[in-house]
Formats: sequence, structure tokens, C-alpha cells
Amino acid sequence: MPTIVVDVMPKSELLDPQGKAVSGAFARLGVDAFADVRIGKRFELTVEGEVTEDVLAEARRVAAEVLSNSVIEDVVGVEVVE
Amino acid sequence: MPTIVVDVMPKSELLDPQGKAVSGAFARLGVDAFADVRIGKRFELTVEGEVTEDVLAEARRVAAEVLSNSVIEDVVGVEVVE
Repeated sequence: MPTIVVDVMPKSELLDPQGKAVSGAFARLGVDAFADVRIGKRFELTVEGEVTEDVLAEARRVAAEVLSNSVIEDVVGVEVVE
Repeated sequence: MPTIVVDVMPKSELLDPQGKAVSGAFARLGVDAFADVRIGKRFELTVEGEVTEDVLAEARRVAAEVLSNSVIEDVVGVEVVE
């Protein structure tokens, strides 16, 4: 069944404490290849049947209204993955 | 600066309680376009300078060893995003 992937990230201007924690862990493990780490959420919405324009529009709507908190997060991707 | 996106999802054979909770919320909101919802994590690793093969290999390594718990999660993507 086709899947729609919705990616949600914390707004870039906000501090990302989880990301900072992972950066700290990288430093302790001697991993220095990455300047910064930010952590968000990835939603996989399974669709029965075909992904029509209406289904995609519904995915965008729930991404903005249900799956993310527009005060602190941005929806950075809504993508159909076969 | 280039970014490497690491996507981590719960193993498909495992129950995803968070996903089920969102499915329940969809049902209460009258959203019926989606048969199932699964929720994972999306990591954005910022790289200073160029993304060399070594940097990408390091991203794959930390994805498997630090950013995911191989008992309950799968790394489903390690991708360079300019």
C-alpha cells in the first residue's frame, strides 16, 4: 500500500535540547564530523488504494493541524512513497 | 551547510502505540483517508564543508550505533540534503 511520509522539525530559531544532547554524546564518543544535530518526527501514513489529490490534500491538512504544533514546529515535507 | 538526514522508524513487526494513538485521533476527527499511522524520528546532521564518503560512512555508523536502537528500530534512510 502506498505511504505518505510527513516530516516535522522544530522551528530553526528554537533551541533543540534533544539535538544538543545528541551533539554532546557525539563529542564524548569522539564523533566530530557533524557541526549540529536537530531531531524531529517522521510520520508514515498508509493509504488504502490510490493516493489521489484529495488524499494528498488531507495529508497536508492533518500534517499542519494534527501532526505538528505550528507554534514550535514546521512541516518540512509531505511526500508520497510507493 | 549541507545536511545529512537520518530517518529511523520502529520495526514494522512491533506495535507502535504512538501511531495507534494518532490513528485514534484521526478517527475522532473524522479523518478516514489513512489506514495506519507509524511514527519515527528524523535527524538532521549539519556538516561543515563537503560531505565526503568518510563523512557519509560516519553518518551511517552513528545512525546504526547511536541514533537508533537496533532491537526495536530500523534506520530507513541516510540521505544528503543540500
